[in-house]
Amino acid sequence: MAATALRESTRDAILDATDRLMARFGFRKMTMDDVAKEAGISKRTIYLYFASKEDVGLSSIGRVVAHVLDELQVIAAADLPTDERLRRVLRHRVLGRIERVKEYAHSLDELFEAVRPAYMARRRQVFEGERDLIAGLLPDNPAASQTAEALLLATNAFLPYSLTVRELGSPESLAARLDSMIETLLHGALAPNQKANLS
Amino acid sequence: MAATALRESTRDAILDATDRLMARFGFRKMTMDDVAKEAGISKRTIYLYFASKEDVGLSSIGRVVAHVLDELQVIAAADLPTDERLRRVLRHRVLGRIERVKEYAHSLDELFEAVRPAYMARRRQVFEGERDLIAGLLPDNPAASQTAEALLLATNAFLPYSLTVRELGSPESLAARLDSMIETLLHGALAPNQKANLS
Repeated sequence: MAATALRESTRDAILDATDRLMARFGFRKMTMDDVAKEAGISKRTIYLYFASKEDVGLSSIGRVVAHVLDELQVIAAADLPTDERLRRVLRHRVLGRIERVKEYAHSLDELFEAVRPAYMARRRQVFEGERDLIAGLLPDNPAASQTAEALLLATNAFLPYSLTVRELGSPESLAARLDSMIETLLHGALAPNQKANLS
Repeated sequence: MAATALRESTRDAILDATDRLMARFGFRKMTMDDVAKEAGISKRTIYLYFASKEDVGLSSIGRVVAHVLDELQVIAAADLPTDERLRRVLRHRVLGRIERVKEYAHSLDELFEAVRPAYMARRRQVFEGERDLIAGLLPDNPAASQTAEALLLATNAFLPYSLTVRELGSPESLAARLDSMIETLLHGALAPNQKANLS
């Protein structure tokens, strides 16, 4: 195994352990000793990969986001009409994140509470990647990038960070509300024949 | 002065003092002693109105939101075409809040950080009031309430809570981005002749 792959696999093993601990105990109670024990790796090694518990938490979020961005690139390149790819990208950027955190969804509030300032600083870069991907699916016009930003910020409303765990509700009701928003975004609230999308 | 009016004016005086202190020192450093001194009211009296410093912070946010909701009701009843009232309501629900907190905008991150769980619990009720007001301006259809929720959640992206102070940017650039989102929301990202709204 090449050195980079080994590094990646150790890093992933630590983050996998973190995700399991967040599912079991939550982020606040979790200690770096717990992470080391759960991962079967010495604490000293863990500190080679992560600067702090906060860094571990942020990196767990970062890994979710990176995986979802990969998936969005696949969806954006699929052999489907452009409006359908756009719809699926907007849907998956939310539901893909939620699917990946579902085992520890009950711990997300305290995770975000603990890492909010650093999280806010990092997320801009992620959003820029998503914005460019979305802009590429919009009708070609000078405002495409700005419209893409609007679509991004609008659907952000359904990300775990924006809603509390309780507000997120069941995956089904969230998906229905998200779909309703996406249709509004694509066709406009004033469209005369806006499809009723009741769940 | 009637007892209720006196209560209101004492309460307002305490919150005015809080807002000034947040402008000067931020929320974290502010103590209840500071609030008492700044308001010229005994600390004992302050505790008749507010349970804790967190309660004072939440109530300051609550007062902003209540004022804006009053203003939205006036806009929603104005003698203007419905789509223009809708546009102005969506715009003012964001810019009205920002205008009212501008003196202590630099302290909002730490205020929200301190009160996040309680704030999340309270805001649902506010949003329901705004949703119903917006639904009343939409073309009459069975999905109006759901569409109104989408408009609400989408424009929430520009509220001080969702963006850090730095991300909020200048009032002008924020207003331009908000306007772009509102046009997308009203007419749809796929509308063939979407107006370019570059700033």
